[in-house]
Amino acid sequence: MKDDLPKGFRAATVAAKFRNWNRDDLGLIFSDLPCVLAALFTRNIFCAAPVIVCKEILASGRTIRAVVANAGQANSCTGADGLKDCREIQEIAAKDLGVAPDEIALVSTGVIGARFDMAKWREALKKLSAGLGKQDAEGFTRSFMTTDAFPKFASRDIELSAGNVRLTVMAKGAGMICPDMATMLCVVLTDAAITREYWRKFFIKEVDASFNRVSVDGDTSTNDTILGLANGASGVELISDGDRELFRDELGQILKKVAYMLVQDGEGSSKVIHIDIEGAADEAAAKKAARAVAGSQLVKTAIYGGDANWGRIINAVGYSGVDVRPDEVGLYLCGIERFRDGVPVNDNMEAELAEKLKERDISVRIILGKGDGKYSMLSSDLGREYVTLNSDYRS
Amino acid sequence: MKDDLPKGFRAATVAAKFRNWNRDDLGLIFSDLPCVLAALFTRNIFCAAPVIVCKEILASGRTIRAVVANAGQANSCTGADGLKDCREIQEIAAKDLGVAPDEIALVSTGVIGARFDMAKWREALKKLSAGLGKQDAEGFTRSFMTTDAFPKFASRDIELSAGNVRLTVMAKGAGMICPDMATMLCVVLTDAAITREYWRKFFIKEVDASFNRVSVDGDTSTNDTILGLANGASGVELISDGDRELFRDELGQILKKVAYMLVQDGEGSSKVIHIDIEGAADEAAAKKAARAVAGSQLVKTAIYGGDANWGRIINAVGYSGVDVRPDEVGLYLCGIERFRDGVPVNDNMEAELAEKLKERDISVRIILGKGDGKYSMLSSDLGREYVTLNSDYRS
Repeated sequence: MKDDLPKGFRAATVAAKFRNWNRDDLGLIFSDLPCVLAALFTRNIFCAAPVIVCKEILASGRTIRAVVANAGQANSCTGADGLKDCREIQEIAAKDLGVAPDEIALVSTGVIGARFDMAKWREALKKLSAGLGKQDAEGFTRSFMTTDAFPKFASRDIELSAGNVRLTVMAKGAGMICPDMATMLCVVLTDAAITREYWRKFFIKEVDASFNRVSVDGDTSTNDTILGLANGASGVELISDGDRELFRDELGQILKKVAYMLVQDGEGSSKVIHIDIEGAADEAAAKKAARAVAGSQLVKTAIYGGDANWGRIINAVGYSGVDVRPDEVGLYLCGIERFRDGVPVNDNMEAELAEKLKERDISVRIILGKGDGKYSMLSSDLGREYVTLNSDYRS
Repeated sequence: MKDDLPKGFRAATVAAKFRNWNRDDLGLIFSDLPCVLAALFTRNIFCAAPVIVCKEILASGRTIRAVVANAGQANSCTGADGLKDCREIQEIAAKDLGVAPDEIALVSTGVIGARFDMAKWREALKKLSAGLGKQDAEGFTRSFMTTDAFPKFASRDIELSAGNVRLTVMAKGAGMICPDMATMLCVVLTDAAITREYWRKFFIKEVDASFNRVSVDGDTSTNDTILGLANGASGVELISDGDRELFRDELGQILKKVAYMLVQDGEGSSKVIHIDIEGAADEAAAKKAARAVAGSQLVKTAIYGGDANWGRIINAVGYSGVDVRPDEVGLYLCGIERFRDGVPVNDNMEAELAEKLKERDISVRIILGKGDGKYSMLSSDLGREYVTLNSDYRS
């Protein structure tokens, strides 16, 4: 039995063969105890059937017991029939696991518009729960990967004054990653005993500071879901302010770590661009500027090519809609100042800059000269491989 | 002497060698008569020095006599020194042409952050005016091309009740094309005698209906400029409502024709995507949805690959911020209905659709089911060649 998950959680996966691949593509997380749920979803109006199901569970305020995750079929834009398919899956799994249907959350990813292949689902669900305890965090993560080059998961043990708890984050996401999530599925587990109020508060805040600050291609998908399950199996209660603060901080760190992996594995990308905006009028302005830079195709392609074309970064700030004065804006690329008081500086450092641009992590620091507003986010570069992957994803 | 320009206009070009290429890269348009000016510029806060100069001329309300256009140097983000360089160019050309410095407009394109190479400018300006009359519309257009695969220009003669006038449009723009213009330079000439009031009114309206509705990569550049010069040399006055209406209509058509060429020649693109939004609550909502679809990397790459992945189009509508109900949205791709009442239709027509996706012009029609609001725009696909071009543009 593999047991790297937090206490009381077990995982299983099977090969449902939703697509023509040689791997497990259906996963299950089961908790021996009821879990307090926190969750965030895509803001896309066309949210997929599994997202609708999860939203209902979240709104009901109930505890949950399980998460079923699949790759290869998104069940998005499938209308009432798609929703019915989700209900049937919940029913089957509920009977098998001895819990209620609405104690089972669903997360799915794949091509939009295709119905679930229910024959495959029914067949695979028969075998799924038998494997519980045989998979670890990596195995479960692999079961809902699509174009990901590597599984994205992390685990950490936290020593609180009341005892030790574990946090595990398992995510997928390569293309279609952008602020407010995009085709990103993520399951966060902890055995800490935490009230729903604090769990949701910490969760929303830390997801906003991590997953909502990464951008690969700017497309927000119909299926994005991030679920947080806390089952209390450690017996360690988060009561003191110190323990709560420490736990929240560790949650933030591990989410940022996995969010970084998402950008690192952005489809066809080779670099992680760290965008830091400072000196904005307020955080909202800083965020606006950061998103414009993160989303610029010209910035992404220049950095992919190792081209120190900093003018494209300034250009993106200029059209971001943020109120700045050109002669008050400053720019550092890879730690080298290249723009100050409205004019280029350090033109003679181009060779040094070209060397630094060969590294994987690229720092873009922009000072707007307006106030104390700050915002940071991560973006990927844009390479030929992105186009190759996305021009024939379905075939 | 080449004379395909409207009456009273002459063109000249020289090789200033702003970059290491074998072609003319500096052009001049001169009008024998003073011209009424209409113009629109980039909304980027970091507007280039030549843009600042043109904005001043426009604001002064003066007539102008000439346009100087160059490729290879943008004179953007160059501060007060960059502006001084523009003034010197105006002074030199003014003396040579026997007009005032502020009767000369400047348009430039190139890499952001580099100063004009004034030694080359001074040398080239000495020879420029001597060639007046030796170039035609195509020659002038070629002088400010950068990554363009072909020159974009069009001319048409308009028979008005008061007599014949000519309209000529000459533009550049390949990458960095997006609504509100982007690295797009365009000079529109006419020998019609039209009041400033009507010229500006028609010009703004028709540019909004053409150049402001194309998208290649979503980046708005620092240098976008579209100038309209009307010199009245035909002696044909636009007085009757009928003549005015006809002229405005022809202006709209020729601008749309050249705007289409811009998208057709989008960097690394092979297709022109015609996006038509119907049934929106109002035009603003329709525009929002159209821009989301036009800007989606996933839509662009799918169409580049000839992949009928219509779900990505619906997805973009869903995150556009436009209020729609999934079960009221409809989608036609290449004239084939693929989505209605919240679910896919015509799944069996995939093969036929795949054939249609091989054509150059791709139609995307989306019905939002909310009202009478409409908006149309053109977008390019996104290919590997775009990345190749833009990852090493400077080198």
